[in-house]
Amino acid sequence: MKDLIDFDAYEVGFNIPAKPGMDAADIQTPALVLDLDALERNIKKMGDYARAHGMRHRAHGKMHKSVDVLKLQMELGGAVGVCCQKVSEAEVFARAGIKEILVSNQVRDPAKIDRLAQLPKLSGGEVIVCVDDVANIADLSAAAQQHGTSLGVFIEIDCGAGRCGVTTTEAVLAIAQAVRDASNLSYRGIQAYQGAMQHMDNFEDRKVKISAAVAQVTDAVEALKVQGIATELVSGGGTGSYYFESTSGLYNELQCGSYAFMDADYGRILDAEGKRIDAGEWENAFFILTSVMSHAKADKAICDAGLKAQSIDSGLPQIYGRDDVQYVKCSDEHGVIADPKGVLKVNDKLRLVPGHCDPTANIHDWYVGVRNGKVECVWPVSARGRAY
Amino acid sequence: MKDLIDFDAYEVGFNIPAKPGMDAADIQTPALVLDLDALERNIKKMGDYARAHGMRHRAHGKMHKSVDVLKLQMELGGAVGVCCQKVSEAEVFARAGIKEILVSNQVRDPAKIDRLAQLPKLSGGEVIVCVDDVANIADLSAAAQQHGTSLGVFIEIDCGAGRCGVTTTEAVLAIAQAVRDASNLSYRGIQAYQGAMQHMDNFEDRKVKISAAVAQVTDAVEALKVQGIATELVSGGGTGSYYFESTSGLYNELQCGSYAFMDADYGRILDAEGKRIDAGEWENAFFILTSVMSHAKADKAICDAGLKAQSIDSGLPQIYGRDDVQYVKCSDEHGVIADPKGVLKVNDKLRLVPGHCDPTANIHDWYVGVRNGKVECVWPVSARGRAY
Repeated sequence: MKDLIDFDAYEVGFNIPAKPGMDAADIQTPALVLDLDALERNIKKMGDYARAHGMRHRAHGKMHKSVDVLKLQMELGGAVGVCCQKVSEAEVFARAGIKEILVSNQVRDPAKIDRLAQLPKLSGGEVIVCVDDVANIADLSAAAQQHGTSLGVFIEIDCGAGRCGVTTTEAVLAIAQAVRDASNLSYRGIQAYQGAMQHMDNFEDRKVKISAAVAQVTDAVEALKVQGIATELVSGGGTGSYYFESTSGLYNELQCGSYAFMDADYGRILDAEGKRIDAGEWENAFFILTSVMSHAKADKAICDAGLKAQSIDSGLPQIYGRDDVQYVKCSDEHGVIADPKGVLKVNDKLRLVPGHCDPTANIHDWYVGVRNGKVECVWPVSARGRAY
Repeated sequence: MKDLIDFDAYEVGFNIPAKPGMDAADIQTPALVLDLDALERNIKKMGDYARAHGMRHRAHGKMHKSVDVLKLQMELGGAVGVCCQKVSEAEVFARAGIKEILVSNQVRDPAKIDRLAQLPKLSGGEVIVCVDDVANIADLSAAAQQHGTSLGVFIEIDCGAGRCGVTTTEAVLAIAQAVRDASNLSYRGIQAYQGAMQHMDNFEDRKVKISAAVAQVTDAVEALKVQGIATELVSGGGTGSYYFESTSGLYNELQCGSYAFMDADYGRILDAEGKRIDAGEWENAFFILTSVMSHAKADKAICDAGLKAQSIDSGLPQIYGRDDVQYVKCSDEHGVIADPKGVLKVNDKLRLVPGHCDPTANIHDWYVGVRNGKVECVWPVSARGRAY
C-alpha cells in the first residue's frame, strides 16, 4: 500500500503532514505519529503470546483502520486476519486481499447485506458475520445465493457488553438451527466479546466478568453439541482481558486491537501485580504530535490539537514524558496546557497520548511512522470514515 | 463545487452515503443529513439580522468546513466571507475563490507562515490573520515580502475565552505599533471572540460576560486612537451572543457558525424570554441519520452511530422528534437506545441531533442535503481533516 502512494501529489501541511525521509522535527502538526520501534515490539509481543497459548489472533481493524498496520500484525505478529465493525470498513481490507475477515457486528440493512455477500469475491477468502436474530438468516442466505458466495456465521452472545447479542442459550440454538437449514451459510462459531469490562481498573474485577462470560458461553456450546452442532471457533478478548480468554479452555481466537497503539484510558488499567499496563505490558506507540501556538499568558500554553485532532470521550490526553505541564482543556482547535513554571515556548512540540485511540485515529487521514528521528513511512488511515 | 463531482466514481455505502436524486429512505447510515429548507431559513434569518443591524457577517467555516454551505451563507445570507481556524482549512476556501478570509487564530510555525503568506495569491482577495505576540510580526512580514503579498492583521484580545489573545491594552498597543512599522502588513482591527460564554444557559449571564468584553476592547480601541491608529473592524460574536455584539456600538463584524446547523448543546441555551434557542430562534438543520441494527433485548435498541459518527464532548445526541426513546450510551460503532415500550424495529431510521456540530461534521466526508423526501445534493465536507 505505502509503495503505491504518489507522495508528489500531496502538499505537506495542506493534505499530508509529512513525507518519508523528512526529519521528524519538520512534521506538520497536529499529526498522528507512530513510534515504529514501539509499535513493532507491541505487535511481536502479542503475536508471541498468542502462539505460546495456542490462540488464533484476528486483529481488530476498527482500532487502526489501516491496511499497513494490519499487514504488520500479520507479518510480525502472526495475526490470521482482521475483524471489522462495518461492511464499508471490511471492503477496504477485502480489496487489500486479506483472506480472513470477520464483520464482528450485525448487518441488517438490505443494501449492506448485498455488499457483504459480495465481499468473498473481493477478498478471495472467507467472510464471517455476526448474527443475533434468527430473522437475519433468510436475508443473508438469499444475498449469498444471489451472488454465488457463501458466508460464515458467528452467533453473537451478549456476555456483558449490553449492546448486540442474544442472552439465552435457547436463542443461540434457534439461530444455529436456522443457519444449518439455510443455503450458502455455515455456522463457524461464537462471538463473545465482553466490551464493558475491558476498562475496569482492577484485574480481579475484570477476571470475575470474564468468568461469568465463560460460563454463559460454555452453556451454549454444550447445548449446541447435544444438538450435533460443533462450534469450531469461540472468538473474543481485548487488550484488557486476552489472558483470561486464552487460559479459559473455551476461547480459541482473540480480537485485540488497542494493545498495538495503547492510549491513556487503557494505560490506566492495572495488571495482576497492580501495575498500569502502559508501564511494562504495552508501550505507547501512538501519539498526537502538537505544537505550542500561543503563550500570551505566563502560566498557560495553547497547543494546536483540540477536538478536530482527537476524541475526548474517554478523557483528556496525557502529555507523554512530562510531569511539569498538563493538558487541562480541549476546545475545537485548541488545547490549553497548564504551564505553571512557564517552561514551554511557542513552536515547542509535545507528544500527546490520546484518551481513546480508536475514534482519534478515525479523525485523521494519515499515520506518520517515525524511527530514529526520521519519518520512515506515511500510511493512509485506509478505512477512515468508513462507517456505513 | 457540487456540479464538479463525478458521482459515478463513488459507490453508495462504501465511500458515499447517497447520490442526488435518491429517495431519502435509501441513504446509507450513519450519514450527515442537512434539512435544506431549515438550513436555508436559518441562513437567511441571520443574514437579515446582520443587515438590519448594520453588521458585516464573516461566517465561521470551521463549523461546517464546507465550501457549499459557505456559498449559501454568502448568497442567501449576505456573508462577506469566511473565518477559518487553520491555514490548511483556509487554503480550501481560498482555492474556491473566497475573497475575504480571516484566519481567526495564531499562526506561528515557519512552514505555516510561509503557506499563509501565499494565500492572497490563491484567493485573489484579502487575507487577515490574528496576532497575540509582537514576536510574530517580523516572521509574518518577512514571509509576505518574500511572496510579494500583503497580510491584514487582527490583534487578538482574550476577552474571557482563556485561550489565545493578549489581556492588556499595553500589549495591544505594542503589537499595533510593530504592525505599523512592518512591511507588507496592515493593521485591520481587533479579534475579540468570547468563546467561553457562548454555552452559558442563562441570557443575563451571557450579557454580563459580553459587557465586560466590550469594556475591555473599548479601552484598547480608544488607546489606539490616541496613538493615531484607527481600528476599522472589531470582530467577534457567536450563536450565543451575536445580539450583544450587534448592539454594542463597538463591534461591526460577526463570526457566527453554529446557528446554521444547530446542535443539542447550543439548543439548550435560553433566549431573553427563557426559551431554548432551538425552539424558535434557530431550527435543527443538521442530523446524523442512523439505523437500528439490533434489538435482541426487548427494552434496548442498538443503532449504528457511535463515536466514529459523532463527537460526544458536549454530551450525547438527542433523538429528534421523539420522546418515547432515548440515546443513552455511545461506544465506538454503537449507540444504545433505551426503548422501554419496545416501539423500535430493526432497520428503523432515526435522526440524531449531535451534541456538538463542529467536531461531528469533521468526522464525515459528505453532507447529504434532503428536501421533500429526496436527496437533492451531496456535498463534500471540503476542509474535513484540514487541521494543520
